Amino acid sequence: MNTSQLKSFSGLYTDFYQLTMAQVYFKKQKHLATATFDYFFRKNPFESGFTVFCGLEDLIDEIENFQFDESAIEFLQNHGFEEDFLSFLRKFEFTGSIYSMQEGEIVFPNEPVLRVEANLIEAQLIETLLLNILNYESLIATKTARVVLAAKGRAVSDFGMRRAQGLGSIHGSRAAIIGGASSTSNVYSGKLFNLPVAGTMAHSFIQSYEDEHEAFKAYSDVFPENSIMLIDTYDSLKSGIQNAIKVAREMQLRGQHLVGIRLDSGDLAYLSKKVRKMLDDADLKNVKIVVSNQLDEHLIKSLLDQGAPIDMFGVGTNLITGKPNAALDGVYKLSSVDGQNRMKLSDNAEKLTLPGAKHVMRLYSEDNLFYGDVVLKTEEPAAFKVVHPSDPSKHFDAGNFRQEHLFQLVVKNGSRTAEKKSVREIKQTVQYRLEQLPDEHKRFENPHVYKVGLSEKLKRERDQLKSRYESQF
Amino acid sequence: MNTSQLKSFSGLYTDFYQLTMAQVYFKKQKHLATATFDYFFRKNPFESGFTVFCGLEDLIDEIENFQFDESAIEFLQNHGFEEDFLSFLRKFEFTGSIYSMQEGEIVFPNEPVLRVEANLIEAQLIETLLLNILNYESLIATKTARVVLAAKGRAVSDFGMRRAQGLGSIHGSRAAIIGGASSTSNVYSGKLFNLPVAGTMAHSFIQSYEDEHEAFKAYSDVFPENSIMLIDTYDSLKSGIQNAIKVAREMQLRGQHLVGIRLDSGDLAYLSKKVRKMLDDADLKNVKIVVSNQLDEHLIKSLLDQGAPIDMFGVGTNLITGKPNAALDGVYKLSSVDGQNRMKLSDNAEKLTLPGAKHVMRLYSEDNLFYGDVVLKTEEPAAFKVVHPSDPSKHFDAGNFRQEHLFQLVVKNGSRTAEKKSVREIKQTVQYRLEQLPDEHKRFENPHVYKVGLSEKLKRERDQLKSRYESQF
Repeated sequence: MNTSQLKSFSGLYTDFYQLTMAQVYFKKQKHLATATFDYFFRKNPFESGFTVFCGLEDLIDEIENFQFDESAIEFLQNHGFEEDFLSFLRKFEFTGSIYSMQEGEIVFPNEPVLRVEANLIEAQLIETLLLNILNYESLIATKTARVVLAAKGRAVSDFGMRRAQGLGSIHGSRAAIIGGASSTSNVYSGKLFNLPVAGTMAHSFIQSYEDEHEAFKAYSDVFPENSIMLIDTYDSLKSGIQNAIKVAREMQLRGQHLVGIRLDSGDLAYLSKKVRKMLDDADLKNVKIVVSNQLDEHLIKSLLDQGAPIDMFGVGTNLITGKPNAALDGVYKLSSVDGQNRMKLSDNAEKLTLPGAKHVMRLYSEDNLFYGDVVLKTEEPAAFKVVHPSDPSKHFDAGNFRQEHLFQLVVKNGSRTAEKKSVREIKQTVQYRLEQLPDEHKRFENPHVYKVGLSEKLKRERDQLKSRYESQF
Repeated sequence: MNTSQLKSFSGLYTDFYQLTMAQVYFKKQKHLATATFDYFFRKNPFESGFTVFCGLEDLIDEIENFQFDESAIEFLQNHGFEEDFLSFLRKFEFTGSIYSMQEGEIVFPNEPVLRVEANLIEAQLIETLLLNILNYESLIATKTARVVLAAKGRAVSDFGMRRAQGLGSIHGSRAAIIGGASSTSNVYSGKLFNLPVAGTMAHSFIQSYEDEHEAFKAYSDVFPENSIMLIDTYDSLKSGIQNAIKVAREMQLRGQHLVGIRLDSGDLAYLSKKVRKMLDDADLKNVKIVVSNQLDEHLIKSLLDQGAPIDMFGVGTNLITGKPNAALDGVYKLSSVDGQNRMKLSDNAEKLTLPGAKHVMRLYSEDNLFYGDVVLKTEEPAAFKVVHPSDPSKHFDAGNFRQEHLFQLVVKNGSRTAEKKSVREIKQTVQYRLEQLPDEHKRFENPHVYKVGLSEKLKRERDQLKSRYESQF
């Protein structure tokens, strides 16, 4: 789906209550009030020590095209919306500003990742679109980054399209490449986002031939430079690898080279070792071993820990659906209206929202790795005393750290402020930033919790506003 | 997304290997061989005792529009596909037949749900599209059916769009309504599939006002007939319910009626009881209680077991993502080529595929409930001796049961054979068929396993083919 196709639906790609609230704002003449909203999440997915922020460029594309066409207006008419409000929607466009961390940034719970400053009605109407895009793409980029870390330099390919959640596959495969996958099987996304596409062959292809050797031979005849033989249709060791070796030798006689074989069932550690030995004994040391079948980061780690001689992993369902979490819990919360601080209360101090317009500074340790992040008011240019969000006894001085601004203006008056970044550039950002993240945050088991503190001023404003609200009831 | 928008991409909405295999079929003149493929799954999601089959009408729409436009051809040209094959793709359309269970049918593991009969290349090229649509919609319809069963007649609304897997939300909300949800928050899907849309209000709406009562009042002014007040922005009991009652009384004075209140945090059993009593004491017995916040079928069951006086459930993330499974494991397997039986071997008898063209008969017990299903060869018009797929000692005689054909011809020569069914009709099918499913299969804990047997003839053909394959290596 390209953005021109999306034009006719982006206005209605929203929750119904956004439109009813918008009508109230409009009728009560509140829609032109200025508002600030934060996008953030409360928990890393997959018990990960970090999250990869993904989806920003897609979001900006959609926001630039956010509008209500006549068929949308007609639909809303039939649902009882009022004519003056619909006239307003006919001319609606997003004219606000968005400040954001860069796409591909490594981000953490309870810090704003993106801030919207716009008229109340505009900021409200883009909420669902924003959450839908950023939550899913960040989930998949994070999952893929973990899978790629587990693969320790070996290639990972996204094989998930058939188990993806419907059309979610379109942006899911983009996020998989950004998260570190080398290729995707998804041709549609490959075309839309200029992603590397790849594939091997299916069991049905082999079954469609009278015998397995004939199938391998046919494939290698048509794709002599790019054949990876799937060897488990009948029996990986007794049949598949024998026929693959036979074909590889026939190819050698023609001056060609079999790229690899794929295992898709059975014990992948046991089979890959057996198959590697058989290939090596047949003087086919360059033939690669690709494996697939319900892989995830934990299984890949375990296979490599056991010395499985695997060259490439095809990862499907678990990657493209972000199983078992299936969603990032990102939220979009109001922090000010007409310059006045606003927050949401909660019995749990960590669930209190942070009032006012904020940005984030990253602190670097002496070895130039990430040390921690600080959330500050926008009027604070640098961090000094940093306090824990809920434990007053924990604080430190940020004055001695190198500090880096993480927020940039990415949309101004409704338009993109800089050229769109390619998937390749964003993927490089992820790689570069992950290298700056200390290993203890990348550990799968019980990773070290990354520090996210508040400026003293922000903490004070939050506590004061909380007290003021609570004094009212 | 409507089908005209999809036209330009459905051909490329596939795994890359489908296209490489297709080029081999074409080059080797194998593409016109006739083939039969089965769609089936091996495991009910969510440890459920049943699965709801969903997505068929969407699949037929896509198959009728399946084609490669010039930009698709150009993309494939740049990826090294050959000119004669691309000329073939330019004229490609699906001209085969599809036999299927009806959409909304209650289906079970290891029985074919749908059968494709087409030229090998056509049957192969629609695989990814078919799996992508049917796997996700069936997952979500099944999840929703379970949530609705847990709600015991109370309304369930799909609130999941913001946490849906990107554009997956489009078909996900359709599947949620089919599975039994009363409404969805997803306006885009509402328009596309004619679904009932609904919503309440967000915390940001309330925070945008100086005080909570003012926010409630503004909303009820604009939507006097359809206000549900969200009461947990500051404090549900000390603030929210007090202001909701105040506004409800003001509405009464104007002859209006507050529809409900919504709880979105805290202990929903405790709070709903407190709030119900406060509403009743204020003579607001008709004001409904809506709850949301990370609900799923198990939590809803537990809330109702504890007597929580809840009238409606808003279910988001867990419903629209099918968490924790996130995917149905549906597969598409070749069962014959040019009339010759084919199968995939496996060490696990239950993972052997079933050769040849098959259909399914449903057997009814004396009380007219589902007793079990039988997989037969298409040439067998009724079931007689039924055997267990892997345990030869288990068999029974189906002669005494009322039997029902579950397969219908739904696509003939590439075109739909009957008028498209509406979501409303399919939803009724689900309700009706679930009533015919015995309760022990609907239990959440360790549900009774539904019988799926094979005809004696099918079992014999499978075992013979297996032996023949194994004798070759």
